[in-house]
Amino acid sequence: MTSEAAKPIRVALLGCGTVGAQIVRLLTEQAHELAARVGAPVELAGIAVRRPNKHRDVPAELLTTDAAALVTAPDVDVVVEVIGGIEPTRTWLLDALRSGKSVVTANKALLAEHAGELFSAADAAGVDLYFEAAVAGAIPLLRPLRESLAGDRITRVMGIVNGTTNFILSAMDETGAGYAETLEEAARLGYAEADPTADVDGYDAASKAAILASLAFHTRVTAGDVYREGISAVTPSDVAAARVLGRTIKLLAICERVGGDGGESVAVRVHPAMIPRNHPLAGVGGAFNAVFVEAEAAGQLMFYGQGAGGAPTASAVLGDLVAVARNLVVGGRGPRESAYADLAVRPIAQASTRYHISLDVADRAGVLAAVAAVFAQHEVSIAAVRQEGRAADASLVVVTHSAPDAALRSTVDKIAGLPFVHEVVSVMRVEGEDS
Amino acid sequence: MTSEAAKPIRVALLGCGTVGAQIVRLLTEQAHELAARVGAPVELAGIAVRRPNKHRDVPAELLTTDAAALVTAPDVDVVVEVIGGIEPTRTWLLDALRSGKSVVTANKALLAEHAGELFSAADAAGVDLYFEAAVAGAIPLLRPLRESLAGDRITRVMGIVNGTTNFILSAMDETGAGYAETLEEAARLGYAEADPTADVDGYDAASKAAILASLAFHTRVTAGDVYREGISAVTPSDVAAARVLGRTIKLLAICERVGGDGGESVAVRVHPAMIPRNHPLAGVGGAFNAVFVEAEAAGQLMFYGQGAGGAPTASAVLGDLVAVARNLVVGGRGPRESAYADLAVRPIAQASTRYHISLDVADRAGVLAAVAAVFAQHEVSIAAVRQEGRAADASLVVVTHSAPDAALRSTVDKIAGLPFVHEVVSVMRVEGEDS
Repeated sequence: MTSEAAKPIRVALLGCGTVGAQIVRLLTEQAHELAARVGAPVELAGIAVRRPNKHRDVPAELLTTDAAALVTAPDVDVVVEVIGGIEPTRTWLLDALRSGKSVVTANKALLAEHAGELFSAADAAGVDLYFEAAVAGAIPLLRPLRESLAGDRITRVMGIVNGTTNFILSAMDETGAGYAETLEEAARLGYAEADPTADVDGYDAASKAAILASLAFHTRVTAGDVYREGISAVTPSDVAAARVLGRTIKLLAICERVGGDGGESVAVRVHPAMIPRNHPLAGVGGAFNAVFVEAEAAGQLMFYGQGAGGAPTASAVLGDLVAVARNLVVGGRGPRESAYADLAVRPIAQASTRYHISLDVADRAGVLAAVAAVFAQHEVSIAAVRQEGRAADASLVVVTHSAPDAALRSTVDKIAGLPFVHEVVSVMRVEGEDS
Repeated sequence: MTSEAAKPIRVALLGCGTVGAQIVRLLTEQAHELAARVGAPVELAGIAVRRPNKHRDVPAELLTTDAAALVTAPDVDVVVEVIGGIEPTRTWLLDALRSGKSVVTANKALLAEHAGELFSAADAAGVDLYFEAAVAGAIPLLRPLRESLAGDRITRVMGIVNGTTNFILSAMDETGAGYAETLEEAARLGYAEADPTADVDGYDAASKAAILASLAFHTRVTAGDVYREGISAVTPSDVAAARVLGRTIKLLAICERVGGDGGESVAVRVHPAMIPRNHPLAGVGGAFNAVFVEAEAAGQLMFYGQGAGGAPTASAVLGDLVAVARNLVVGGRGPRESAYADLAVRPIAQASTRYHISLDVADRAGVLAAVAAVFAQHEVSIAAVRQEGRAADASLVVVTHSAPDAALRSTVDKIAGLPFVHEVVSVMRVEGEDS
């Protein structure tokens, strides 16, 4: 193949853990195919790691501890980053971009905080910045948002983008067990990190939501703009209440374009929500991710696949690497940051949501009327109500229509203080069906 | 926005039917947004139609009947084709490419026959050829195959890519009605064309399968290479037999990379098949499309969305148009044809499939032994068998393990000729589960 005589594309790899090792493997095993697809050989110029003696399965002469030197080395064309974290990674990638290297990264935390700065550096140097692997692992999702749907108006992105929380919630649904013991089990099976905070408190999903919202709505959205609730407060009572209603609980990342008096804005939120058991997202189990995208012309689309893991993530990274390398061979660049719309990010209080509320109340006359009055005072419309007498008290379940989240919260606070309400058993947002 | 001061990208539109009218609408309504995303305004230079007086809703000064002149006009940068058919469309698009215009087309039939020729012309002129809308309407599928998975090895693509046949099979499954009357009903409801041949005989799906296989396996596959069976021979007995087994019948397009003595090859086929009712493709109803992609590193991915219709198809066309226009503004080109692998296409007889066979047999000793012997003679392994006595005869259902399709056919032919076999009630391939 004549293309292999072309000048090689030289790649600096930052990090050689689970994902990095798979990248090294695939670059080696598929060298011939990648060269044919790119139009030039793709070669590793070096691999920056912290402890070289831990990586006996990669060629020792490629290993270095000096990432800063590697990313600006004159014979490097592309920097691939799979270390994660903000610093020193941010500095290395900015240095790489400023030195004229294109960058492929899987670093969701960094992009969710500093995408603007990274894009500016890429633009100034005229190089590419790709990051498909940062959201939903192997699932082609960012490229469809950035490119396939570039002629459409995306209205909503909703999905399961964190495998750890999905594993835990699926297990709680199956076993009826509590959060703490299910998390322990997940850690034992390798589905949760030793420090699971980033996953279970929703930070990981919020970073991904920020990236998705930025691309979908042509607006800079950072992780700090994302309303975030994790899953640690989800109780067996919530799970049981969902089951009674034919629903199940999932941690959802939701990015919406919303109208309003002050013009269009976006709302981005991560929280557990009840969805109908027959909703396609309800069947997404374990470490799989799935994302719904709604656009004005395209209608509803769904993307499904493995959201994490060494090989799937490496697949996404290599897809980006081929794109960047092709651009280097042919000339030209991939899409740049598109933030022209610059929409305001609306706080959760103004977002329109639906609530499921399950109460233990005294079983006597007037209770339902009093509860209904509180909803009416807050202008929250009730979609469904079910009251069941038990020994001394009664179970009262209310599902609302869409209303501002702030109004729903105030409603719940007020109801919790009513004298005949013994306990607020479960409060959970509801998604995945018409309101 | 400064970008709108940039030189406009001028678009010639060929065809102004259901899809074309939506393209005109979106180009007008989203002019400002498209300009911001592209970095230059995107303008219609002209619209070629057969009968201009039929198109009163588009500006009259844009209409022309002279497509040949429009596609080579000096002030045209991109030609968007939504006419369909082979000629004269092929000639117009080749002329456009040779005149240095990039081309965006939704024409599956043309691409499934002449992709090589079109790509060669695009390469010679250094322009782009994009065709996302040709397969699965609005679903971003070709871009993921061409780009996102360019660093991976795709092993299998399997999906529902034709809405008309999916509507008919879904309806037959629900009502138990026969093919002919269900087709009539589909035509009455607008789900089938007056001449439904291209859909019901699998030609449309075969064109799409050829395009998918070409991209997935880096090999030129044309529609003629695709084994094709339509749905007209699917009977209520087949549908009922599937139901008894917890399966349903779908028309599937299947593209596989297969190993073998003579090295790797590809097998591409379109035929009805029984899939388990709990398979994700089983729930895809009506005009929706869904496609599974399996790759070595990425694992299993699924893409789901609207497979046809004016607005969804226009969304895919405009995504391509934005990509092409960006390339014109920034310089550079999208991915070219990648056919380096040049794998052989294996005939259906050598493809490995599984059969479900339902027989009416005489209810007497030795029948099962004799039938089993025929399977053994052809080296076809039986996965499951069920025999039920009825009045004078018995029902015998056999599901096989994977075997060469030719061996399975010979087995069925031989069994059909056995004296105690009263009727072959149903023969159907089985997909969607491990063999």
